[in-house]
Amino acid sequence: MGDPAGIAPEVIARSLADPEIGRAGGILIVGSWALMRAAFERYAPGVGLLPLDSVADWDGLHPGILDVPVPDEAGIAPGKPSRASARVAGEAVRVAAGMAIDGAVDAVVTAPLTKWAFAEMGLPHHGHTEYFAWRSGSTRFAMMFVFGQQRVILATTHLPLAKVSESLSKRRIIDCVALLDETLGAHFGTARPRLGVAGLNPHAGEGGLLGVEEQEIVLPAVVECREAGIQVSGPHPADTLFWRMAAGEFDGVVALYHDQALIPVKLLGPEHAVNVTVGLPFVRTSASHGTAFDIAGRGIASEASMVEAIHLAGKMVIGSQTPQ
Amino acid sequence: MGDPAGIAPEVIARSLADPEIGRAGGILIVGSWALMRAAFERYAPGVGLLPLDSVADWDGLHPGILDVPVPDEAGIAPGKPSRASARVAGEAVRVAAGMAIDGAVDAVVTAPLTKWAFAEMGLPHHGHTEYFAWRSGSTRFAMMFVFGQQRVILATTHLPLAKVSESLSKRRIIDCVALLDETLGAHFGTARPRLGVAGLNPHAGEGGLLGVEEQEIVLPAVVECREAGIQVSGPHPADTLFWRMAAGEFDGVVALYHDQALIPVKLLGPEHAVNVTVGLPFVRTSASHGTAFDIAGRGIASEASMVEAIHLAGKMVIGSQTPQ
Repeated sequence: MGDPAGIAPEVIARSLADPEIGRAGGILIVGSWALMRAAFERYAPGVGLLPLDSVADWDGLHPGILDVPVPDEAGIAPGKPSRASARVAGEAVRVAAGMAIDGAVDAVVTAPLTKWAFAEMGLPHHGHTEYFAWRSGSTRFAMMFVFGQQRVILATTHLPLAKVSESLSKRRIIDCVALLDETLGAHFGTARPRLGVAGLNPHAGEGGLLGVEEQEIVLPAVVECREAGIQVSGPHPADTLFWRMAAGEFDGVVALYHDQALIPVKLLGPEHAVNVTVGLPFVRTSASHGTAFDIAGRGIASEASMVEAIHLAGKMVIGSQTPQ
Repeated sequence: MGDPAGIAPEVIARSLADPEIGRAGGILIVGSWALMRAAFERYAPGVGLLPLDSVADWDGLHPGILDVPVPDEAGIAPGKPSRASARVAGEAVRVAAGMAIDGAVDAVVTAPLTKWAFAEMGLPHHGHTEYFAWRSGSTRFAMMFVFGQQRVILATTHLPLAKVSESLSKRRIIDCVALLDETLGAHFGTARPRLGVAGLNPHAGEGGLLGVEEQEIVLPAVVECREAGIQVSGPHPADTLFWRMAAGEFDGVVALYHDQALIPVKLLGPEHAVNVTVGLPFVRTSASHGTAFDIAGRGIASEASMVEAIHLAGKMVIGSQTPQ
């Protein structure tokens, strides 16, 4: 459900009203029945929803809502984030993660929340990615962005830029290449994908003149991955790599730091990029926007990114059931 | 002329054959008459060119070639960079810089060369930007990229990423904001442009959580520029700033490091971005591609970036003659 004081309820309701999403079926919203019902009445009045108290009661086909009520939820209003709204978001994530880990659902699609959702549970996580990894005991996981045929996996995420160099390791880059290779094979129907790894420095270090990380860390990782049979090349200059992927030369790219990935992702797919966590025992996608408390409840938020996130989760689940 | 072993001669010849460039007149090619004549015969046979031995003989209207012959130029061939081809490139730049500094021409448009052009002159410069700054005694200059209505100026350029943080200073950011403000006013007809400064860290540091450079360096520089009357804001998260400029919210942006600028520039304008040096006593633009020795002489190089560079130089000269 995400934080109900943000745009999450309205984008979820509108997404379910999308004809293709509606036909796909098999969607269970996890959150407050009372709050979601209000959002559906306003933003998707034609969509029928089955309220459920347990996932065991769900037929797995018709859209349903698994109710996870929290105290004070009646006082929650769009645009007014509160401890109660954070608690709804946290409870929804907690229950959804449990269902995914138990295999009751194939994928979790998340809506935006704040770190207060985790703080209300007494947890230190800043976002879904770290929380899901912790819940499922995954230590080898990464954030990936998908927009159309383009996929970018991140070797580092929320770090000061000055700390990126010292945080990179050959092991982490190998893990990211392998995660990308496995994910594109298992969930995107691309066996033996063509992968590229970005350099860290201008012109990918220009042979050591503009930095040594390419030679000391990135290249040895690429060599080891190639020896393991993965079709990967690099380090490539980052300023043309994303253009080359957009032109079809690569099926996926490893970016070394947050903005190296997010600048092209937001330029090429401002509304359509989907955030995917790879390395979990279940499929997890997310709308790429935030809670947007400032415009919540005004009916102007676009559901485009949420629709893409739901679509992609479905495609990734089907991909994982296709023989390689 | 650029390095005659690269694609420079063919893109220059084809640019002069462009009807609009041809009508503009007032273009003097500086380089080897023998080598340029061969390129014009092959790639732009209909274009008439006046060979000149001195800029004093030029009428300033008809396209001409100022011949700067070097020894061994007869042995130069496309795809085969040599000391002789580097010498042609270096001589052309040396003569063109002198003419611009003397006021004999209003602008210099450069074609690609390698650092060997400067090495052959016994100079340490790696590219045109540093060379022109040195020749004209400019200490406050910067590299800028222009693509359509979008302009990005770079606070740092060819540095290892790990050195960017320590290389930033409040002074340098103030200089870049002021150079961008002055240039857009004087050469682009945009008085009081709306400028944005990028943050260094993910989410522009997220209030200090992901880095302190925004609070310690960037924000104080922005505040000082605003107090001086410049319409500037920031630091803004870099991952949405270029998208916001593309959407029309900013007339120009200050980027803090090479790839922060070049990733969006190459994605949005792979063939049409023009490299501009600001802070020189004359207008200087450049095609944004390299020498491309690997495809030289095959007639497949696109002249699009050179045509844009010539057009932009002309517009910038006219802009500087418009009353503010």
